[in-house]
Amino acid sequence: MILRMRTFVIVAHKAVTTPKFSLNDLPGGAGRMDIIARCINASLFLSHDLRRDVDTCAVLLGDPSPPVTIRFNGEKVRYLSPDERSAAALIKKALEKGAPPTGEEESTPGVHISKCSFADVIESLDNIVYLHEDGEDIRKADLKGDEAYVLSDHQNLTPEEEAILEKKGARKVSLGKKLYHADHCIVMVNHELDLREVK
Amino acid sequence: MILRMRTFVIVAHKAVTTPKFSLNDLPGGAGRMDIIARCINASLFLSHDLRRDVDTCAVLLGDPSPPVTIRFNGEKVRYLSPDERSAAALIKKALEKGAPPTGEEESTPGVHISKCSFADVIESLDNIVYLHEDGEDIRKADLKGDEAYVLSDHQNLTPEEEAILEKKGARKVSLGKKLYHADHCIVMVNHELDLREVK
Repeated sequence: MILRMRTFVIVAHKAVTTPKFSLNDLPGGAGRMDIIARCINASLFLSHDLRRDVDTCAVLLGDPSPPVTIRFNGEKVRYLSPDERSAAALIKKALEKGAPPTGEEESTPGVHISKCSFADVIESLDNIVYLHEDGEDIRKADLKGDEAYVLSDHQNLTPEEEAILEKKGARKVSLGKKLYHADHCIVMVNHELDLREVK
Repeated sequence: MILRMRTFVIVAHKAVTTPKFSLNDLPGGAGRMDIIARCINASLFLSHDLRRDVDTCAVLLGDPSPPVTIRFNGEKVRYLSPDERSAAALIKKALEKGAPPTGEEESTPGVHISKCSFADVIESLDNIVYLHEDGEDIRKADLKGDEAYVLSDHQNLTPEEEAILEKKGARKVSLGKKLYHADHCIVMVNHELDLREVK
């Protein structure tokens, strides 16, 4: 798996790892797949454009065969619209294709599926930033824009997942004292990095 | 219409004004209702909580009987989940109830429907902020958090709509030089105001 530039990693603790879910019930039967769809939107969309320097990895940990990692590449992705169903439909197609025994496979342009675990994904990345309310203020943090930002879905990261980040030397960076949905956090990170870019 | 505290006003140029749309096709048949659903999410949700000091008004201008304004009140709203279908379902219920000839009516707790036009909504508000790339930098702007922030959907405001804002003395405030989706703009505004609150 080649990951470059800015990366977002979302841990989807309950999102299903079968294509047999309904696009009409993303929050329920699909294990909060709606959150993942919104994170993909938040990470990749500009108005009438895509963020071509962003990779977004969703690590799906729900039944029946976790882990599965779906990677959306902003440079290559096609057939992606901003609505939740669109991102979820591309995830469904990836799950229909299935993950190869090793490495990753492209299911639709710019969308890749693999059996990578959270540990595998983190191991393949550098400059890990764990978004956490106790971290350093994002507006003061030394960020270049090519970091890998790690977020969790509606559940916190487990102690085991936090240990993986700690072992890799992840920095904690904070968006403030309020707690936000993962997709909102991604918008805030992208915005902060956008403002630094144009200065 | 009593509006208080922070308000977001989204102009939905194509969103339908009939309940006869499918929750399975919000971007198409419902006239980009997916954008409005995401704006409601962005304006009202914190992690495991709602922003109780926010009102969000969507001015629907699509066929067959525009204008219709749907107002979500963060303090009172119930049955709202973060996914697009959930907000859209509450809009659908409001449209089923229909707007009264004058004033507004509550369709479900915290959701109100009226025949207010964009001009009516703006007339009822003070401290209007028009989010526009040519405005004053949001990080330097004098904002108290109780402003009414005006955004457009995937189409720009028309010259007539801009004239309504100008007449009311709206200030232009900018989120930067990149162009963003309306829901992402709302997340950025809420974040900026959150950070000021806790200082």
